[in-house]
Amino acid sequence: MTKIAVANGDGIGPEIMAAVLSIFKAAELPLEFEFVDMGKWVFDKGYSNGMTPEAQQTIESLGILFKGPMETPKGKGVKSINVTARKTWNTYANKRTFQTLHGVDTVFSKAGIPIDITIVRENIEDTYGGIEHMLTHDVALSRRFITRPGSMQVIKYAFEMAKKKGARRITCGHKANIMKLTDGLFLEVFYEVAKEYPELNADDVIVDDLCMKLVSRPDLFDTVVLTNLQGDIVSDLCAGLVGGLGFAPSANIGDHISIFEAVHGTAPDIAGKNIANPTALLLSGFNLLRHIGLMEPSNMIENALLYTLESGVHTGDFGDKSTPSLNTTAFAEAVISN
Amino acid sequence: MTKIAVANGDGIGPEIMAAVLSIFKAAELPLEFEFVDMGKWVFDKGYSNGMTPEAQQTIESLGILFKGPMETPKGKGVKSINVTARKTWNTYANKRTFQTLHGVDTVFSKAGIPIDITIVRENIEDTYGGIEHMLTHDVALSRRFITRPGSMQVIKYAFEMAKKKGARRITCGHKANIMKLTDGLFLEVFYEVAKEYPELNADDVIVDDLCMKLVSRPDLFDTVVLTNLQGDIVSDLCAGLVGGLGFAPSANIGDHISIFEAVHGTAPDIAGKNIANPTALLLSGFNLLRHIGLMEPSNMIENALLYTLESGVHTGDFGDKSTPSLNTTAFAEAVISN
Ligand SMILES: CC(C)[C@H](C(=O)O)[C@@H](O)C(=O)O
Ligand SMILES: CC(C)[C@H](C(=O)O)[C@@H](O)C(=O)O
Repeated sequence: MTKIAVANGDGIGPEIMAAVLSIFKAAELPLEFEFVDMGKWVFDKGYSNGMTPEAQQTIESLGILFKGPMETPKGKGVKSINVTARKTWNTYANKRTFQTLHGVDTVFSKAGIPIDITIVRENIEDTYGGIEHMLTHDVALSRRFITRPGSMQVIKYAFEMAKKKGARRITCGHKANIMKLTDGLFLEVFYEVAKEYPELNADDVIVDDLCMKLVSRPDLFDTVVLTNLQGDIVSDLCAGLVGGLGFAPSANIGDHISIFEAVHGTAPDIAGKNIANPTALLLSGFNLLRHIGLMEPSNMIENALLYTLESGVHTGDFGDKSTPSLNTTAFAEAVISN
Repeated sequence: MTKIAVANGDGIGPEIMAAVLSIFKAAELPLEFEFVDMGKWVFDKGYSNGMTPEAQQTIESLGILFKGPMETPKGKGVKSINVTARKTWNTYANKRTFQTLHGVDTVFSKAGIPIDITIVRENIEDTYGGIEHMLTHDVALSRRFITRPGSMQVIKYAFEMAKKKGARRITCGHKANIMKLTDGLFLEVFYEVAKEYPELNADDVIVDDLCMKLVSRPDLFDTVVLTNLQGDIVSDLCAGLVGGLGFAPSANIGDHISIFEAVHGTAPDIAGKNIANPTALLLSGFNLLRHIGLMEPSNMIENALLYTLESGVHTGDFGDKSTPSLNTTAFAEAVISN
């Protein structure tokens, strides 16, 4: 039995988490779930980092957190709970996988262009350090920093992962032609690490050119590693290619703690109605299962999901509008029965 | 007669410029062309900013430069000639228009999703200031600055342009949820200027979300204004949506000097072979003609180009591969005869 921490999050979080856990339970996985209090609703109770001390302790002792979406509290100087969590636990690599899913129509699936891209994004540095000030009333300055050890750990992770999955290609996206020192450092580390993986096909593409290529020939890419903000932008671009954040799983990987999460919003307008799409959270769950070595069960449930989607079953937010949509629970049951 | 400065640039520059000017001459435009020496080939002669003093003087006295692509010289500390030109003449707004062109197949044109997007990118500030240093061997720092007057001039330009063309919507792309002061300032100025244009539908979208939306519903956007690097990335993304940089015109607008250019590369591998595609430079030329008030002739030549593309005429880099492609000169002649 592996014990993992589970945080429902806000908005639609509790319902999609319940749906995903019901699938995991039906598969009789050797997993125990310990629910922790974390989210905007916890922030509202006066916990400035969005979690209770007990939650933090549990997560730190278990090392794995499975989390639903969390709302960013409003207000100047207030940080996003998601970003705070990434920093608190030094989850230096953000991994997002984007795959063509049969049953989820996009212009690319219709054009017959298959997508299978993994974005590995540095998760701590860059302007996400939040070091900004006003020089004068009229001039704002932000410091962007890139470090060698910070770049090293995420790039090593990306190569190791690419090797394990037998990636066709690993690409560094960057803007080192303009940010010659910062992105230059990241790129230098990339090629340094690449030397240790002669079996992998490593190259680099300037980030603007990368985006141009991703929207016309996404099938040419496999694993792409980038600095934080560029990785943020390219991740969402790729999510758009496969149908949106509802189909984009995310894992924040650190040496001691890893977080598996849905990165879409909390959809307060439909919260509590049992109509939300649990797919992104379920896909994140597969990452979690594989992370703790449960390959077989993960593949089994993934096949059930793919079969479910392919057979035209869908929630209200996607799929063939002329066929009735299922609610969250019924969608989970369809996956279970498959 | 309006006199404009013309720089062929490097690689395929001379041939595509000759093609475009032959079209302009055939249309008997009231234009005189003064050729100036600018490009990597001039840099190689020892002019560190890539132009002769005479070229600089001519451009500054005429106020309008029509330029082919220019290669960025290699070497540490060496700046791109294009970026240097933008700074030297404070061309603070970079305007790029992206339109579905019949005859240029993309996944979006095939899906019947029409695109007509104008990106207005701030052209001077941001990390393009190039203020970087190594704090230690392992830590690189880059300063990103956004100023109120710098934001004001480009945003005012964007609103003025959007008003003139009767835009459906004007959107500010930004990452003010993370870069609260720098992008926050840009966003604040955006809504300040928006108040003066109550007739325009102004809104903002976080840049990662914007990219996700652009690759699924590009038809929902019209004019988008962004800071420099984000604008660089989003511009290329949009170029990809309509077929690549070969179909993406660019104008760098300043108060005294404006530059109209093709932003694609110099394609050294095909230079001198008379097979390059002059479309992007020709589209940039339309921007130039409109800028100096030649609306009618510009529309006339644009119709000829659109008709040419629609009728299936193409150079080797695009179009129906089963029909023969034309060389650069013949493509220009096809436009002229239409
Ligand atoms: C909500 C926001 C702060 C966050 C980010 O920028 O990292 C989001 O876009 C993401 O990608 O997880
Ligand atoms: C060549 C490069 C410096 C330039 C930029 O980043 O501005 C290019 O990408 C562009 O968009 O014109």
